Amino acid sequence: MKNSIGREIPENIAGFSQFIPFAGAFKTLPYMKRQAPAVKMIRPQDSKLVDSLEEVFKRIPITDGMTLSFHHHFRNGDGVVNMVLSVAAKLGLKNLKVALSSIFPVHAPLIEHIKNGVVTALDTNYMSGPVAEAVSQGILEKPVILRTHGGRARAIECGQLKIDAAFIAAPAADDYGNINGVEGPTACGSLGYALPDAEYANYVVAVTDYLVEYPLSPISISQTRVDYVVKVDSVGDPQGIVSGTTKITKDPVGLKIADTAARVIEAAGLIKDGFSFQTGAGGASLATAYFVRKMMEQSKVTGSFALGGITGYMVEMLETGLFKKLIDVQGFDLEAIASIKHNPNHLEVSASFYASPFNCGCAVNKLDAVILGATEIDIDFNVNVVTGSDGIIMGGSGGHSDAAAGAKVTIVAANLLRGRLPIIKEKVLTAVTPGETIDVLVTERGVAVNPRRGDLKKLLVAAGLPVKDIEELKALAEKIAGVPQQIITGEKIVAIVEYRDGTIIDVVRQVKMQ
Amino acid sequence: MKNSIGREIPENIAGFSQFIPFAGAFKTLPYMKRQAPAVKMIRPQDSKLVDSLEEVFKRIPITDGMTLSFHHHFRNGDGVVNMVLSVAAKLGLKNLKVALSSIFPVHAPLIEHIKNGVVTALDTNYMSGPVAEAVSQGILEKPVILRTHGGRARAIECGQLKIDAAFIAAPAADDYGNINGVEGPTACGSLGYALPDAEYANYVVAVTDYLVEYPLSPISISQTRVDYVVKVDSVGDPQGIVSGTTKITKDPVGLKIADTAARVIEAAGLIKDGFSFQTGAGGASLATAYFVRKMMEQSKVTGSFALGGITGYMVEMLETGLFKKLIDVQGFDLEAIASIKHNPNHLEVSASFYASPFNCGCAVNKLDAVILGATEIDIDFNVNVVTGSDGIIMGGSGGHSDAAAGAKVTIVAANLLRGRLPIIKEKVLTAVTPGETIDVLVTERGVAVNPRRGDLKKLLVAAGLPVKDIEELKALAEKIAGVPQQIITGEKIVAIVEYRDGTIIDVVRQVKMQ
Repeated sequence: MKNSIGREIPENIAGFSQFIPFAGAFKTLPYMKRQAPAVKMIRPQDSKLVDSLEEVFKRIPITDGMTLSFHHHFRNGDGVVNMVLSVAAKLGLKNLKVALSSIFPVHAPLIEHIKNGVVTALDTNYMSGPVAEAVSQGILEKPVILRTHGGRARAIECGQLKIDAAFIAAPAADDYGNINGVEGPTACGSLGYALPDAEYANYVVAVTDYLVEYPLSPISISQTRVDYVVKVDSVGDPQGIVSGTTKITKDPVGLKIADTAARVIEAAGLIKDGFSFQTGAGGASLATAYFVRKMMEQSKVTGSFALGGITGYMVEMLETGLFKKLIDVQGFDLEAIASIKHNPNHLEVSASFYASPFNCGCAVNKLDAVILGATEIDIDFNVNVVTGSDGIIMGGSGGHSDAAAGAKVTIVAANLLRGRLPIIKEKVLTAVTPGETIDVLVTERGVAVNPRRGDLKKLLVAAGLPVKDIEELKALAEKIAGVPQQIITGEKIVAIVEYRDGTIIDVVRQVKMQ
Repeated sequence: MKNSIGREIPENIAGFSQFIPFAGAFKTLPYMKRQAPAVKMIRPQDSKLVDSLEEVFKRIPITDGMTLSFHHHFRNGDGVVNMVLSVAAKLGLKNLKVALSSIFPVHAPLIEHIKNGVVTALDTNYMSGPVAEAVSQGILEKPVILRTHGGRARAIECGQLKIDAAFIAAPAADDYGNINGVEGPTACGSLGYALPDAEYANYVVAVTDYLVEYPLSPISISQTRVDYVVKVDSVGDPQGIVSGTTKITKDPVGLKIADTAARVIEAAGLIKDGFSFQTGAGGASLATAYFVRKMMEQSKVTGSFALGGITGYMVEMLETGLFKKLIDVQGFDLEAIASIKHNPNHLEVSASFYASPFNCGCAVNKLDAVILGATEIDIDFNVNVVTGSDGIIMGGSGGHSDAAAGAKVTIVAANLLRGRLPIIKEKVLTAVTPGETIDVLVTERGVAVNPRRGDLKKLLVAAGLPVKDIEELKALAEKIAGVPQQIITGEKIVAIVEYRDGTIIDVVRQVKMQ
């Protein structure tokens, strides 16, 4: 069957009994009630402190086939996933599902656990490194579910991702299970992605290396939801959080694209008091923030809020009064971590608050502009951020599809050529963010506006921006680099790309190894 | 049938199909899943701002027989309950249940709504004033459910109190429904009792007189749970919050009782670093805090936290370093409101965090000592805080039963005579807090220790405290004032006293009017 953007979705996918094809960004409405875990009781004298993870496994007890969840605020510095799974392996558990909000190179030991049958299913919003490569090569029987950050919160809240036990890497905790991310030697800042897990899992385990006197404060995850507290030597390495680029690009092409992206925002009439903005941690995204900042300063504009994963650059804009608030679901660097600890205008929010499509309103809905990346974009503006030019999984939506759906103006900023290959395709290999939610593509050779946004096109043309048809930009790229060969994939489906509303927007097939 | 403390509970109570008799403070275990309201979706362009309460009623829509919930942080200064119910009356609605966490004299207009059939059921944790009197006289067909503060949170979380629409009196809100209690002209401090309502109601309405730019912060109730935002002229009068006594008593008998209560705490070995404490806002409770404070200062003890409804006196103890944290479910005066706004060690928590028996652990479980009041106590240490000496409802458990169940040492401090009547009875008229959770009765003529606490009795005797048998104290009081006549009540049950775990601990019968 084909979904509404023409992607071929097999009727039967091994391990998935039912799924709904993508029907449009706001077309699929929720029909369910919230997930309802069992109610518990503990007596006043009961202690939650447990000596070891192994003991926690026995007390819950964790059994074959369960779903264990984890959050990724430590990114490539995470210490908890490997620690917990090695206990699972030691105890001889099999057939576990790992629901880890993002998977990084540090999680390479997962491969052995998959080979040994300890882990047989993955559920994540982003994956890069050895695990992503192994998945692309078909290491798992069942396809991985790739969600968005908001979609994962939705899946948990709606009972579509049922979590038996959530393991929270807790930078600070007290003996009754109150947790925050801002204290202790491994502070990671916001715990936004862990909050839905803590709210809806059947069991919640605080894994901490910094046990403080009761009551800990501030409280990000409450004692009312935490069953066990385990002290370990280290939950992670905060240096590993800074695994992406957090410096503004120096590449002149990148700077040109960033400058143009900022001018698109200006031309759209958004640089005015109350402006709200999201940008990622990449060098080009930050460069756009740099140009936007100049405009805000020149026009003496005070923005309302910046959203998303937060960098030191955004902290600077908060501190200089360019934004009134930061809404933070994840800290991208140590400056963001320091800021959320001390600045009351730097707010920690859950993944649901950030981006879930199925609640009473998430923060991306309040965005004026967002700058996003792409590995490919097609002439219908559908964007791929999952697979690389070789067809191998090297990322994921994260908040990409969420912010695109919410923002008034969604800009994809990208070099026309990526590794000497045109980024504009007839059809992207993997559709992740639907074209209807992308408004503008900004490249160094011109700007393409989604035909759905005739209003915006007029404004950009009037502002003298180099507006071109996306087909024209595609032709331009192909003139330089030729038409890239189509990637030949295998038949086996290695990942399902779930849109934020729970529908299936695409599948990823196994790559053929040379 | 009789429950485990020997109270007669009729098998059939009009309007209640099933109930479980009280079986002991920690004997009834939860068997249910959490309440699961329907999942919702709103689109980025949707607005939540609505012009009037009437319009909100139509949009939801509110229909006959629904349950509307309210919180009582404005106490006798509340403006929202009367405003909302007058809209209900105007629209001709009938048969509504009002779940208002506490009912004060200001809520007298409820009587007219009951007479007119607009409201036919009440669910509350405390009631005083005209509504309580009218209920005692049998104005309602169905008995009122009287819960505890923790029990109400439990009932909401467990789906036993299902709320169709929660109306939140919001001192500050933004247009997307983020709410806090610390800003605006009618700041009331903690919104603790409103948090379960906001979390589990089918619809949540923010009623505010102070609409701020998005995003409001701090956020106590999140946009993800709020459906509508209505601006009104005033949500209440913060002066009305200070409706109880918040000054230390000057009565020498009260001071003697308070001094003795403090010595009980000291003798129990609790005045040491890490000490945690709850006391109410009454003059005698505050006086106990005064004597406890002296002891802490003399012994150079730093306490861990003070809990509960918070007064300026506790704020002073926080600010002078005698306690490290305040855990605040409700501000009792304007000093508490100012403190929670500015002091990061003054924590806002939900009623569930404070006291629900059915979660992974509430704060009362961490209490060392609590000082409570009583209108009556019986020789089994069962306490009445619902009905007065005339049998008329004049209060309710509030957090009484919760704190008693949680604290290591629970002290009831009371004058031996109350209005010239002995407070110690053979059997209390209304059992609210079970004797097994009361450790010590302190009066001006002696201290009685619950026989269950032989360990404690030894310590108090060793410390030279005037320990007496409770029967002895009873005899003493009766010698002075005679044996009080038993109150003759009617047959009709006007209120059900629910214990915090959802079981029925007693019923209140109609008073016979002269």
